[in-house]
Amino acid sequence: MNTPLQNDLYLRALACEDVERTPVWVMRQAGRYLPEYLRVRKQAGDFMTLCSTPELACEVTLQPLDRFPLDAAILFSDILTIPDAMGLGLYFAAGEGPKFKNPVRTAADIKALPVIDPADKLRYVTDAVSLIRRELNGRVPLIGFSGSPWTLATYMIEGGGSKDFAKAKGMIFSDPDTLHTLLDKNAKSVIAYLNAQVEAGAQALMIFDTWGGVLSPENYRNFSLQYMAQIVDGLKREADGRKVPVVLFTKNGGRWLSDIADTGCDGLGVDWTTDLKDARTLCGDRVALQGNLDPCVLYGSDENIRSEVKKVLDSFGKGPGHVFNLGHGIHQFVNPDKLAVMVEAVKEFSSKRIDQAH
Amino acid sequence: MNTPLQNDLYLRALACEDVERTPVWVMRQAGRYLPEYLRVRKQAGDFMTLCSTPELACEVTLQPLDRFPLDAAILFSDILTIPDAMGLGLYFAAGEGPKFKNPVRTAADIKALPVIDPADKLRYVTDAVSLIRRELNGRVPLIGFSGSPWTLATYMIEGGGSKDFAKAKGMIFSDPDTLHTLLDKNAKSVIAYLNAQVEAGAQALMIFDTWGGVLSPENYRNFSLQYMAQIVDGLKREADGRKVPVVLFTKNGGRWLSDIADTGCDGLGVDWTTDLKDARTLCGDRVALQGNLDPCVLYGSDENIRSEVKKVLDSFGKGPGHVFNLGHGIHQFVNPDKLAVMVEAVKEFSSKRIDQAH
Repeated sequence: MNTPLQNDLYLRALACEDVERTPVWVMRQAGRYLPEYLRVRKQAGDFMTLCSTPELACEVTLQPLDRFPLDAAILFSDILTIPDAMGLGLYFAAGEGPKFKNPVRTAADIKALPVIDPADKLRYVTDAVSLIRRELNGRVPLIGFSGSPWTLATYMIEGGGSKDFAKAKGMIFSDPDTLHTLLDKNAKSVIAYLNAQVEAGAQALMIFDTWGGVLSPENYRNFSLQYMAQIVDGLKREADGRKVPVVLFTKNGGRWLSDIADTGCDGLGVDWTTDLKDARTLCGDRVALQGNLDPCVLYGSDENIRSEVKKVLDSFGKGPGHVFNLGHGIHQFVNPDKLAVMVEAVKEFSSKRIDQAH
Repeated sequence: MNTPLQNDLYLRALACEDVERTPVWVMRQAGRYLPEYLRVRKQAGDFMTLCSTPELACEVTLQPLDRFPLDAAILFSDILTIPDAMGLGLYFAAGEGPKFKNPVRTAADIKALPVIDPADKLRYVTDAVSLIRRELNGRVPLIGFSGSPWTLATYMIEGGGSKDFAKAKGMIFSDPDTLHTLLDKNAKSVIAYLNAQVEAGAQALMIFDTWGGVLSPENYRNFSLQYMAQIVDGLKREADGRKVPVVLFTKNGGRWLSDIADTGCDGLGVDWTTDLKDARTLCGDRVALQGNLDPCVLYGSDENIRSEVKKVLDSFGKGPGHVFNLGHGIHQFVNPDKLAVMVEAVKEFSSKRIDQAH
């Protein structure tokens, strides 16, 4: 039995319940901008060792919470653990980002791929979740996550990152049936993976659709959104007698927020290219919104950071359903003190806002 | 005195006049996917020699017109000629894209930058325009172009391409006044540059705002759109007794199309992430629309290419004001025969469409 939550602001905001101030966490809050992270990263040797050693993954997950008064923790892991477990051979080339030794390019490659049983190949992740949950000891909720089926597919087909997604998007037009087979396997694997994270102790889930925004509206619906909807339908949505909220985030997906909300998810990640005011108009009160400060704001002066935080809070406006975050991950070369200014400003201005409303 | 135009479909479509079929051209239609281009590129030695030798720039500009029945030619050049002329030292590192030897990072760097006089430093471009116009001999109109002030600024500040634009976007929040100084110098230089292209024979102009879409709505207006509006206001809009239309293209700028149309430009470039139908709803009849087939469609079968072309034409619907194009540049590894299928399909289906309407 886990300790009861001492701070459930994040879960209440995602449930669109009244909160005394806007909760805040930060995508990639555990990461390279923190000197204490770099120390553990160096100790681990390579990145996958860090991800696959529960004690180390737990240590870096908790680091930002010890430095900043954040309202949620997020599992430290990589979005590409699933294709790695499928046998694609994930590795990280220095300065080049993630790569696969065995990309999938043909119908035969994709037919041969297994749907992943996380109890078999991804125990290192669920072990990390259990350990983090225990070490958190109820301070804040723990978010589990996965990449979206489409986003995983882009890396699996391209063999790594891409500028134009020629191979992955090319398959939409050259062999859509094979691509659907891959996306269905990814979706089933993500469902099993996220449900295993919930069983291990994750109290909220987030799906990162980093590359859904490179598709046309029609192809977004058919090749990305459809499979995220399949996942939302297949997830365990309750644990410890409490709802496990699911947040979907399609970067550059601002025009499709209403369609994303139609999946029945609890929250939407919004990047800074869409005003939260417009996002709210599009979605109504069906979902909570997470976002959306431009990560580059953290290169500004303290005073500018404070005024940009205020703009984001004002753009969302009054009423429940806002989780403050950056619109994408924090950058590697940001001074951590700047993040402290941001977090402090969110707390100060959102508390004031509610005071004034009373 | 130049020969009268034999094919002015492109100019008439941009003027929203009735046309017998939808005109078509392709961004980067002169380029690496063509073996005849690669031959000249190799002969030139390096890319900048190709751009700065009018005879070679003319030769590659005309190559796609000899292969495909396209309705416009576009000057072969690079968007970064202006910062190069300002002294930043443009070079191309193999496989890494454009780089600058002397990026601008400080207020002093930017204060020292000149506004460019194209008669002084960019004669190689206007000489190429004059030569191409003469060699075209009235077959189709010639499009001149420039990068947008913001897009130029990103490369000038970053020193090359970027994934997150930390330095360029960081300046928005750390030193906006200095950034405005840079953008104003860029805008003034672009005005002089494009007017010189018109004087040399360009019959239409296009401004590529490749990176406007990475900004928030507010910062897009203040740091990109404002300066494109300044350019539209400063351009000579007539030559040879005919209007010189201006097309603005912000990649990933679909939500801001109506604001872009407010600049008074004649046409909007639209990428594939926005349906032309929605773009038309946003903009009404104020502007023509250029686009928007996903370049990855050209990896598909001939039959799929034809059906995707039809979808784009149907999405625009009936009435004047459409110039068919890809939603971004053609990819390097596309088979040129696939482009022939696309061009043929545009002609076939758009002629039929008009027949049916009669």
